[in-house]
Amino acid sequence: MCPGGRVGSQCEATITATAENGGVQLADVVNLAQKFSLFGDQWNPKIVGELNDFYVKLVKVQGEFVWHQHENEDELFLVVKGRLLIKLHDRDIQLDEGEFAIIPKGVEHLPVAEEEAHVVLLEPKTTLNTGDAQSERTVANLQWI
Amino acid sequence: MCPGGRVGSQCEATITATAENGGVQLADVVNLAQKFSLFGDQWNPKIVGELNDFYVKLVKVQGEFVWHQHENEDELFLVVKGRLLIKLHDRDIQLDEGEFAIIPKGVEHLPVAEEEAHVVLLEPKTTLNTGDAQSERTVANLQWI
Repeated sequence: MCPGGRVGSQCEATITATAENGGVQLADVVNLAQKFSLFGDQWNPKIVGELNDFYVKLVKVQGEFVWHQHENEDELFLVVKGRLLIKLHDRDIQLDEGEFAIIPKGVEHLPVAEEEAHVVLLEPKTTLNTGDAQSERTVANLQWI
Repeated sequence: MCPGGRVGSQCEATITATAENGGVQLADVVNLAQKFSLFGDQWNPKIVGELNDFYVKLVKVQGEFVWHQHENEDELFLVVKGRLLIKLHDRDIQLDEGEFAIIPKGVEHLPVAEEEAHVVLLEPKTTLNTGDAQSERTVANLQWI
């Protein structure tokens, strides 16, 4: 599959590289700001890269998500715009631009953003956004952009 | 181990979380700029986070590295300061601030930076910086900061 459904020379190069190494595609340059400009919906992570068993995702968040944990997956949150609060049961983690934190598997957490924040997620491909708390917020099939 | 050799309440919280989930430490907030201020040596990646079988590393680069490939590991380069050129045999990838690219396993590449660039690396824990081209540039034992 050509990421983002692109066609043309860049995508052909991608496909060639995929065939050669039998795995992850040779990504073109991914500009974070440009990718964030492609969507407006919140709490709906988009995939922008894969490497080994991991995905790189972008998500826009605002308001309060749901308390959840991931049974097997550690999860990295890197804030590139705005501010993200990750509530844990024993403390809060406040992330500003240029900061990240890793929430280990099994640690229940609640992401909150007073104003819209742009976040890069890094996590195993098996990660479901709502973890053990499946609900109407769950996004099972993520879109590549 | 307490990342960065820190002591005090934050590190105790980290240790507790590690014991509870049996794996990755509950990281404190990692500020990329602050971490980059802690070292000056080039081509010597430092570990700033781990999640599942991956490390997050920071590296300062300038000049030309060595042609190499990684047999099993895909590798993500995210530029947070400066400009990084990744030469491939069939083309060049130019990364500016806020841009990343993923070099798949088996694809030989040569990182080059005319002026010092600050780069976040994301790659499986098994990744050796020089891949199949071990030399005096190889750093086998990485430092946590």
